[in-house]
Amino acid sequence: MSENVLERLEGRVSYHDSVEEMLKRIRDDGLSSVFSRWEEQEKIRCKFCLQGMSCQLCSQGPCRISEKAGAEKGVCGIGPDAMAMRNFLMRNIMGAATYGHHAFEAFRTLKATAEGKTSFKITDEDKLKWMCEKVGIDSSQDINQMAIQLAEFLDEEMNAHPDKESIMVKAFAPKKRISLWKELHLYPGGVKHEVENSIASCLTNVDGDYVSLAKKGLRLGLSTIYTAQIGLEMVQDILFGTPMPHEVDVDLGIMDPDYVNIAFNGHQPWIGVATLQKAKMAEYQERARQAGAKGIRVVGSIETGQELLQRFEMDDVFVGLMGNWLAIEPFLATGTVDALVMEENCSPPAIDQYAEKYQVALISVSTIIGVPGTEHEMPYYPAKADEMAEECINVAIENFRKRHKKIEPMVPKHKTKAMAGFSTEAVLGAVGNDLNALVDVIAKGQIKGIVALANCATLRNGPHDWNTVNITKEMIKRDILVVAAGCGNHGLEVAGLCNMDAVEMAGEGLKGVCKALGIPPVLSFGTCTDTGRISMLVTALADHLDVDISDLPIAVTAPEWMEQKATIDGMFAVAYGTYTHLSPTPFVTGAPKLVKLLTEEVEGLTGGKVALGDDPIEAAKGIEEHIMKKRKAMGLQV
Amino acid sequence: MSENVLERLEGRVSYHDSVEEMLKRIRDDGLSSVFSRWEEQEKIRCKFCLQGMSCQLCSQGPCRISEKAGAEKGVCGIGPDAMAMRNFLMRNIMGAATYGHHAFEAFRTLKATAEGKTSFKITDEDKLKWMCEKVGIDSSQDINQMAIQLAEFLDEEMNAHPDKESIMVKAFAPKKRISLWKELHLYPGGVKHEVENSIASCLTNVDGDYVSLAKKGLRLGLSTIYTAQIGLEMVQDILFGTPMPHEVDVDLGIMDPDYVNIAFNGHQPWIGVATLQKAKMAEYQERARQAGAKGIRVVGSIETGQELLQRFEMDDVFVGLMGNWLAIEPFLATGTVDALVMEENCSPPAIDQYAEKYQVALISVSTIIGVPGTEHEMPYYPAKADEMAEECINVAIENFRKRHKKIEPMVPKHKTKAMAGFSTEAVLGAVGNDLNALVDVIAKGQIKGIVALANCATLRNGPHDWNTVNITKEMIKRDILVVAAGCGNHGLEVAGLCNMDAVEMAGEGLKGVCKALGIPPVLSFGTCTDTGRISMLVTALADHLDVDISDLPIAVTAPEWMEQKATIDGMFAVAYGTYTHLSPTPFVTGAPKLVKLLTEEVEGLTGGKVALGDDPIEAAKGIEEHIMKKRKAMGLQV
Repeated sequence: MSENVLERLEGRVSYHDSVEEMLKRIRDDGLSSVFSRWEEQEKIRCKFCLQGMSCQLCSQGPCRISEKAGAEKGVCGIGPDAMAMRNFLMRNIMGAATYGHHAFEAFRTLKATAEGKTSFKITDEDKLKWMCEKVGIDSSQDINQMAIQLAEFLDEEMNAHPDKESIMVKAFAPKKRISLWKELHLYPGGVKHEVENSIASCLTNVDGDYVSLAKKGLRLGLSTIYTAQIGLEMVQDILFGTPMPHEVDVDLGIMDPDYVNIAFNGHQPWIGVATLQKAKMAEYQERARQAGAKGIRVVGSIETGQELLQRFEMDDVFVGLMGNWLAIEPFLATGTVDALVMEENCSPPAIDQYAEKYQVALISVSTIIGVPGTEHEMPYYPAKADEMAEECINVAIENFRKRHKKIEPMVPKHKTKAMAGFSTEAVLGAVGNDLNALVDVIAKGQIKGIVALANCATLRNGPHDWNTVNITKEMIKRDILVVAAGCGNHGLEVAGLCNMDAVEMAGEGLKGVCKALGIPPVLSFGTCTDTGRISMLVTALADHLDVDISDLPIAVTAPEWMEQKATIDGMFAVAYGTYTHLSPTPFVTGAPKLVKLLTEEVEGLTGGKVALGDDPIEAAKGIEEHIMKKRKAMGLQV
Repeated sequence: MSENVLERLEGRVSYHDSVEEMLKRIRDDGLSSVFSRWEEQEKIRCKFCLQGMSCQLCSQGPCRISEKAGAEKGVCGIGPDAMAMRNFLMRNIMGAATYGHHAFEAFRTLKATAEGKTSFKITDEDKLKWMCEKVGIDSSQDINQMAIQLAEFLDEEMNAHPDKESIMVKAFAPKKRISLWKELHLYPGGVKHEVENSIASCLTNVDGDYVSLAKKGLRLGLSTIYTAQIGLEMVQDILFGTPMPHEVDVDLGIMDPDYVNIAFNGHQPWIGVATLQKAKMAEYQERARQAGAKGIRVVGSIETGQELLQRFEMDDVFVGLMGNWLAIEPFLATGTVDALVMEENCSPPAIDQYAEKYQVALISVSTIIGVPGTEHEMPYYPAKADEMAEECINVAIENFRKRHKKIEPMVPKHKTKAMAGFSTEAVLGAVGNDLNALVDVIAKGQIKGIVALANCATLRNGPHDWNTVNITKEMIKRDILVVAAGCGNHGLEVAGLCNMDAVEMAGEGLKGVCKALGIPPVLSFGTCTDTGRISMLVTALADHLDVDISDLPIAVTAPEWMEQKATIDGMFAVAYGTYTHLSPTPFVTGAPKLVKLLTEEVEGLTGGKVALGDDPIEAAKGIEEHIMKKRKAMGLQV
């Protein structure tokens, strides 16, 4: 790692002071954390697993591949490249299916809402009409009727298959990509169909060819974005409003122990929104006061927090975002959280010790959640959202009585401003609804290019958020605009890179653009689920210029990917045609042909490729070189 | 292992002489095989993986759990029981989704056939009507219209979800189970919905609770059988005829090098049937003769072979079944195979060396297949089945010219008779369509009970098919009727246990029944996909007696399970309420609470449980004890 980054690592496990402070308390209180367990696991890592050379699929395994040991294939006969790619495809499948699950919940929520069964309403009618027009649904009909039709259409799209092609892909794919994907057999069906096909391929003795498996990963990536992600984000906009930029508070300093604090954690905003609606009513605030609190507050935790953040203004009730997933244990240790309401990842499995020690009620509002110590379990039914929100408030108020003045609170002082709520519409708005204005600043080189940063946070390649923050600083310094999504985005928000002060860290060209438009150099575009939303902006740009995605001076980086939704976003990016930096290196290093395919050969097919490397400065250089190459090819100022 | 079994193991790796003979040739020819790679892998097994204590899901891993090493949890915080169960659930998901894939192909084939787009026809109209009546489709309409409606209904059923309950489950579940499953939250949705829900649960930081994960496995098992397997087998009956008992030839001795030999391998019979139809035409036989062959023959390989075997009579063209999956490499080494046409597991990844050495053309007829060395790849479209069959024949004839008299054939002399084609209808037919007759022989103790054997073949617990054959011999000796499905069934067919000679190996009671009814003591019920079909017979028996499944003197054994479809069948069996013997032991031994849940505590919930143990005699004893306990509780003669 470069010297100047390394010297700042010393003694730290997180970029954020608030997390560092809380980890002291956690250690003093004798609890384990992701951070301490990381140290234990570092002692007993398996080298075969790290290289992707381990398989436990069938009863003839577990197998390991080691040329040295004379074991060049698994018992079934699978070789190193296919073994690693099959393992990786299984991870991609997990991500794809989880987005599919989120989409399923979104579409049934829209349908139930249009049927008048929920406490939600259709907030963005224009977007509903726009979506319907995009996919060929009559937009002159009654709003609710239209919403029902759209919800049913989107749900069916997830099952699109060879006999019934996807309409969503056709409607949202970049114009120049469609024929290429068809030619490469990458044109996808619906996410449920592709997930099933991919899993059946991964079964023992089915697909043992690394190229075939890799292509399935790419197709699955396209399927995920076009038939799950984009639809679900648009539906969330229709229900709760399209994100528009506004200032918010982030970091652990947002907490106040004297309130009943309900945190919503995961990715799916349904119960968070329902609770926020209720908590704003005087009646509920009054109930909290009767329990001795100053009132009820809703706190955003990780991606669910971001979903709320980008659509709702801060006020007395909604107080901001605590950070990203590695901050969850520190957040609970503040002794200020009354209820952690969970519906998706990341809901870490060992927070039961925190719940007990710091008196937090754990609530699950989805059948997929299974966190030990969760006393309140409610499967999600859209029609029950209101009732479920009521229960969350009841549980939290009850918890407040047990927590307040019994658990010593410890709240780090750190609180930062971030500008959240960028969306394609917001960016277009910032440039006066004229893409030419954006093209112009790129053409002139004020902005060299655009990089989408979408990922998690991990300890594998350095302290928490260290790589994410450093690569971002390097990029904006080089006049590259960063569009951020996912837990990485929350890391940047907390690190102060998404507010107007950060403009000073940008290179001269980017600084000028930011000042002129009143935007920070890092645009908070939401959650990992907003990868699709980011692609909509890029697709609009490519189609506007009548060029292909792979021609644009853009790139993707996932400098701290951790879980499986990040890997499927990465596969999408490669199929979409973008240079895609991934750190840490996935478990593929025992598979030389696969590494070559993903980092070199695939460029000849899709124009995209994977770039590896854990040093943020080197990674930023690689991205800049790629962008300059594309600028040159397009005849732009270099 | 018991002495009397052990002494017969000496020096062998397969129960079957034909396989042993071919392995000599394979070794002499310098090729690796599953058998030789097994020996290499035995030297470098990972103990953590064997115990289920290894996780490679996220970038903070790979993690291992070891109390000794001070690593009691993974980095995320997951404990040993949840880690093992999550790994196991991922395997179950693979099996479930693969059955779902097979079902998808079946339903679209039925639909296309009814629309007149394929070379198939509706063969069993009575079964079509019966199915429609079972699920509430008007059975008085035009046959093709009815078939289209059924196909669409079954396809939709795979997406049944909380807002839209499954009709298939209600129609086919044992009457007494429905309320129990609802109470335990095991009442399933469609297989696509449950697969998605289960995968999303397995994502890093979502479900870290072993009980919750185990229940998802049980629910997924029920979903698989009721919304995929039963529908797909009934559709295959509708298309190709309901299996009825008839005599067939099995083992490698069925091969004749002087014919153009096309083998169909996998589970899905579409192209096998289409090719068989064509190969029976004089025109195609003539083309083969022109190439210097005596004609064209269709050979059944593993489960696809069984699907053909149970529905089509043997003749000059269709010559029988070669054995099960561990016999594939030996089969190819005979130097008599012109084309191996593959569409599902088991299509082992290292057969490219066999294809080259013994001149075999590898053909895939499904997008899921990816076997290195496959030169002919055709995605499956029902409307193209005829064209695809034509291509298979062309490729095989072309291969014959390169193989015949150029590759030295070596065909073991072994050929055995088996009675294939049992189905619920066939068993009812055998007892004069009166379940009371079956109840009567059970009540009197002539048959102590019924055991369903459904599984694969593995080397983990002894030579190929050794455990399967020995446990079966032990059971029939104890007057337990065996109903067999899957690769294990083919092992029994080849071992001579599915013909009338085997009656002499049965105990006195069972012998008498077999002789009276003219059936062998092991009923060949088809493939692993026929697990659902077996359950239909058991459900009929339970409903007839108005008792629950867990009351019956029955059990399930999977004495050589190998892959993931077997594990989901096992989960189904436990949820269905049966004592379920599994060998080898799944990778769960590092998870004491999970082992206790699966082998003990679950019995208090579903009445079913997992029994472990690799000794076939001990396992048979355990099964007999369970059956006798149930007989006693029912007040039957003991």
